[in-house]
This record gives sequence, structure tokens and C-alpha cells, in this order.
Amino acid sequence: MSGYFRVQTGDTVSTGPRRGVLSTPHGDVETPAFMPVATQASVKALAPEDLRRIGCEIFITNTYHLSLRPGVETIETLGGLRAFTSWDGPIATDSGGFQISSLAHLTRISNEAITFRSHIDGSPLHLSPESAIALQERMGSDLLMCLDHPLSYGADEEAVRDATRRTHLWAERCVRAHRGPGLLYGIIQGGTSAELRVESAEFTAGLDVQGFAIGGLSLGEPKELMWEMVDKVMAFLPPDKPVHLLGVGSPDDLIEGVARGIDTFDCALPTRVARNGGIYTPEGRAYIASNRFRDLDAPLVSDCDCWTCTHFSAAYVHHLFRAKELLAHRLASIHNLHFVLSLLGQARTAITDGTFAVFRERFASRFHPPDGDIREAQRERYNQSPRVQARLESGKSTSWADLD
Amino acid sequence: MSGYFRVQTGDTVSTGPRRGVLSTPHGDVETPAFMPVATQASVKALAPEDLRRIGCEIFITNTYHLSLRPGVETIETLGGLRAFTSWDGPIATDSGGFQISSLAHLTRISNEAITFRSHIDGSPLHLSPESAIALQERMGSDLLMCLDHPLSYGADEEAVRDATRRTHLWAERCVRAHRGPGLLYGIIQGGTSAELRVESAEFTAGLDVQGFAIGGLSLGEPKELMWEMVDKVMAFLPPDKPVHLLGVGSPDDLIEGVARGIDTFDCALPTRVARNGGIYTPEGRAYIASNRFRDLDAPLVSDCDCWTCTHFSAAYVHHLFRAKELLAHRLASIHNLHFVLSLLGQARTAITDGTFAVFRERFASRFHPPDGDIREAQRERYNQSPRVQARLESGKSTSWADLD
Repeated sequence: MSGYFRVQTGDTVSTGPRRGVLSTPHGDVETPAFMPVATQASVKALAPEDLRRIGCEIFITNTYHLSLRPGVETIETLGGLRAFTSWDGPIATDSGGFQISSLAHLTRISNEAITFRSHIDGSPLHLSPESAIALQERMGSDLLMCLDHPLSYGADEEAVRDATRRTHLWAERCVRAHRGPGLLYGIIQGGTSAELRVESAEFTAGLDVQGFAIGGLSLGEPKELMWEMVDKVMAFLPPDKPVHLLGVGSPDDLIEGVARGIDTFDCALPTRVARNGGIYTPEGRAYIASNRFRDLDAPLVSDCDCWTCTHFSAAYVHHLFRAKELLAHRLASIHNLHFVLSLLGQARTAITDGTFAVFRERFASRFHPPDGDIREAQRERYNQSPRVQARLESGKSTSWADLD
Repeated sequence: MSGYFRVQTGDTVSTGPRRGVLSTPHGDVETPAFMPVATQASVKALAPEDLRRIGCEIFITNTYHLSLRPGVETIETLGGLRAFTSWDGPIATDSGGFQISSLAHLTRISNEAITFRSHIDGSPLHLSPESAIALQERMGSDLLMCLDHPLSYGADEEAVRDATRRTHLWAERCVRAHRGPGLLYGIIQGGTSAELRVESAEFTAGLDVQGFAIGGLSLGEPKELMWEMVDKVMAFLPPDKPVHLLGVGSPDDLIEGVARGIDTFDCALPTRVARNGGIYTPEGRAYIASNRFRDLDAPLVSDCDCWTCTHFSAAYVHHLFRAKELLAHRLASIHNLHFVLSLLGQARTAITDGTFAVFRERFASRFHPPDGDIREAQRERYNQSPRVQARLESGKSTSWADLD
């Protein structure tokens, strides 16, 4: 298990931007890289062919969700995740720990294990560090996450300390349970406490893992606080192992993460934004249903070479959204994921060329993210939508973040 | 406008199975052919690339729906239907007459014209025979339908006589308004009255049109009655012009139509069935969400060479449906349309080989359509679904048939 990560260019102390190659059992991934999210073994609205076309090299799926449906045994019987999804490249898996926070009311937790009540039919699912690893291995994951215990922003310090130390205990058991050949990542928790983050980074850095994931962020805290925590953590991680930032993010967050030495990311945001008609452009998000696209006989973004932009006019995509046609979801998701992956491709080139600082500045001066208030309002609106409300009332989910 | 339809093999008096080629301004169509339905300029869940892969040569879209959204002017500005949808083959258009029955409560009708109240925003749309042709021509339709006045099954004879004669008056005006180069089809009405059907067939046969469409069937009447009407009509149509059967159908109906000399068909059924998890197999419809597909590591249909069956296991498609993943709609729609188009391909080969009668018998002995009671119950369930109820209550649609 050596040589699976090669830093090619950039910062060798892992706190600045760097370019590398991550070798998994089923293929290499050029880093910095973004992993589209396939919560239920499908990147929503897309087929593997679509992922290839946008330059995707790896996606991430979810152990909790797949354990409940279709069941790990089914996936195993069918030849593992790759055969099941017809994707011939690497696949990463989250451990299921995240659902402790997103499905908190369905969860009972002890140092021994987590017991979930299924959000589908109420049946129990026990997840111990050992079983979390076994499930990921049985599915044939290329990049496994240790079982962790994240808490939403705002939890009190004592609870965060508890959860962080539980995460450490579990990590040691995960390492012992891990048989390979997939790469095992230890997850760093610690909430928004600098002290706990440092403790968690130092502890996790000492484990026999192949990489690190920073968890428990992008869960409602201010962005400045998120980056402060990332900075704290990065200083304590060994420079020869890859670092993943869980649940991030937006185009601007990806560039900020790369600037801090993050190697890989995953997030449902680009596809969720797409399904709601939000289109990434170099200037920020545009809303495809707005009138200015009605008669636009040009691509969504003028120089974009994604499959959507090279095949369809903005006016047609606008029409599909207005008419609530299913094809709209696919076309917008292809565009947004291509935007994000191509942005990281540009970042890799800039790192090689030694021009990342300029690239970062140029990007930031042009790209205007929705501001914090707008994001908060959007989240609020999302939580109040009939679909989410129905789920909340039926006890199926407590959090927008779990809905992919 | 001659030589656009060549009967190659089969019955030359147009009442038995025949094979031909229909030449439109934007390409040839091998007949018998099926046209997928793209009510709002999108075959639901599919891209043009998907249509090509299933062997589709032409699809049909709807003048009423496109006039309201995005508007014919927008489509014209963007270069017509082909440029708008990024489809480089022929496109047929229905006239909007069908919405007289499917949106009856939003319709005011006179011999002069139809006035619709938009099902989207209540704004008025006037459709005269002349404007129905002009709208189709402005969109660049390859195969235009005359404006007609269909009635649902059960209308009284006097009303049907009225509507049929109005259809004739309108057809004469459509012929005068038609400038080409698209092929204009006259529509035969007459409800379930043999006398009116014969009158309508004789009248329409005498018009300067390039083809005929049989309308007002498959609207609730028993199947035997539908075929009785088709038989009546076919005997009066000139054998050198193509005949289209509107709104049909299911795999078994297509073969029965071909047996009677029908050249082309259109119907939303294969894609609607697909979106509800119904999968066509040589034995009939199967329900992909049923347990027997849960662990099936084989295609939906064992020897099927559609894109879905050659790329994904039945177990994966089953999972996508159970998990309500958007990709499910696309994969099932590709399979069902491929099934229908490939069935007509086999029919064409059988006609060429002189073995159609055997082919028809073999197909019928193996394929078991849902029986009438089941179909009626399904329609009833569909009408009572929350989505349809919501539309009915909001006055947006009165009929399942209009929902595509």
C-alpha cells in the first residue's frame, strides 16, 4: 500500500495547492478532483456515459442508503458496485456516519455502534466500525471512509468532544477491521473548536490510514469558520497522504479548498442546484427559467464545451424547465458537473504552471457566489418545500443535507 | 409533390399489410413506422441521441402545446423545430384539434374556429384551420395534420355528425391554406358510426392531401369497435397514399394496425407505461418494481439489444425505480420505445418475406396485453392520482390522454 498517492507539483507540506495522482484499485484519479454524489448508486439523472463525458474519474456513494436499499448482499451478488452501476472506474463510499446527524431522530448511538431505524420502513440497521468497513469492502469500494460521528453546527462543546473522541475510538477499530485493497480514509472531526480539530488531526495523522477526510463542516457554520478549521487541521497532516473535504462544495469553495491543499471533494450541490434550474457560469449561478434565456439561441455559457452546451440552446433548456420536462434535469446536471470538473482541471493546470495564485484571484473576482443571506434563505425555502415537509412529518429525514 | 410515398411490398389496395418508404422534406421514414410523442418538443426523459439509438426516424409534437409554450414565434426565431430540439430528422405535428376533446372545458368551438383558454395561464388561443396550418408550417413541420374535431367515445350521434362535418369543412380550408413543403394529412372522423366513418373516408379521400390520419379512436371504445371502424375506413382510401392511425398504441395494437394496412402510428403509451415502471417483453408488460427483478443479473429482456438492456441489469433498473431515481425514467423509456420500433422492424421484414400472417399469429400467441378490465382500472387509478387530481381541480386538464 505505497505509492498510491504521488504529489506531482505544488506544495509538499500539504498546506498549499498541489497537484497529484491518486491510484485506486480500479484506476487513477487526477487531483485536485471532485467526486459527484450518487447517494443511491446513481448520480441523479445521469448515466455512467454522462459522467465519462464530463471527465468524471470517480464518484462517491453511501453505505447507509445502499445497506437499506437494495442491500449490500444484492450489490455483492451482482458483482459489486461497479458491475451494479455499470461504471468501470473507481468508486468511493461514505461510511454512513453522516446520517447520524442528517437522520438524528432515527439514531441511537453508543461507543459500541449506531442503530438506525430505516428511513424507508423503520427496520433496524446496526452500524459498528467493523460492519461499516465490512459493508464497504463487500461492495468493492475503492476509497472507504472510517465510521465517524459528526454533529451539526451549534452542538455544545461537550457533545462535540464526546463525538470526536468516539470518532477516534471507531477509527482505530476501522483500521483493525480493514483488509484492503481499497484505500481507507480516517475522518477528522472536532466541530468548530480549534482545540478539538487539532486534537483530531493529530490523532488521525497517527493512524495507519491511506488518506484523511475532514468531516463535520459545511453544516451551517459561517464560511470563515469552516476555512479556519480546515487551516487548523491541514497544518497537522502528513504531506504524503491525500486529504478529502467532505460535503464541499460550490465552485468558489472548491478553489478555496484547493488553495489550502485539499486533494479531493464531494458534494451533492452542483446536481441539486441543477435540478432546481441553477446553472453555473463564470459569473456565478444563473437561473435558467428566467426570461433572459427564453429566446437565447446560444449555449447556456458561451464558450462551454460540455455535452449540453454543444448540443442544445439555452432557449431549449429554458423551455424544458418551464415545461417541467424530465430531460431538463439531465442537461442541467451535465452542465454543472462539467463546470465544476473543468474548473478543477483549470486549477490543476495552473498549479503545474505555477500560476494558481493568479488563477484563484481571477476566478474570485469574476465568480459571485450567492451571499450568505441568500444561501440561508434558500436552505430555509428548501426545508419548507412540500416534499421536504412531507418527509419531515413522516419522520423520514430531518435535514436538507441528506436529500442529495 | 409526387413520389413521396412508395409502397415496396405487400398489399396494393391498402387494406392489408404493406411496407413502404415515406419521403419527407427532412428525410425518409421506413413504414410501417411508429412516431414517439414529444408533446412539448421533448420525448419525455429522452434526448435526440437516445431516439437515434432506438432506431427512431420521426417523432410527433403538438401545435396546441407549443403555441402556448414556448410559442411558435420563439421556435421560428430559433430556426424551427429541428434546430430547437437538436433533431436532424423529420418531425410531424398534430394540429391541436385533439385538445378539443382532452381540454373540452377550456374550449369554445364554432364552424369558424376553436378558442382555447390556455391550460397554463388562461390566456386565449384561437385556432382556425388556416392558423393551424400556418403554425405548423412556421415551425417547419414535415408532416402536418388538418385541424379536426374529435369527440370522446359515448358522444351522441348528432354531435358526432356535426363534428365530423365540421372536420370536413376545416379540411378543405386547411388544403387551401397549405403551402408545402411538408406533407399534409387529412383526418378522418366519424366516431363509432360506420355510416359517418364511410362518409368521412370518402370525403377525405377526395381531398388534395398527401396522406390520411384516422382520428377519434382509442378514446375509450372497445377494441373490437375500434378495428371495425378502421376496417370500414381503409376500404375507401386510395392505395397510393400513406395512412396514419392517431393515438395508437400498444404493441398488440400496432401489429393489428399493420395487418390492416396502417403505415404510421403515434402514441404516448410506451413512454408513459415506462415512467410507471411497465416494461414491454415478448410476453406482455412486466412491472420492473416487482420482487422478481430484485437480484436479476440479466437484462430486462434476455435477448434485447436496446441501450438499456446492453448496459444495465434488470436489478439496477429495479433499484432505480424503487429508489425513485430519475435515471429510471430514461432507461425504461428507451427500452419500451426500442421494443415498439423493433417490433415494427420485424413486421417490415416479415412483410418483405411474405410471412407477416405467421409473424402476427406468433406474436399474438405469445404477447398477452393487459385485459380490458385491467386497462380500465389503470386508467381509473391514473385519473385518481394526486397529480392528475390536482390538475383536474385546477382546471388544467380534463383527460388522462392529454398528459402524455
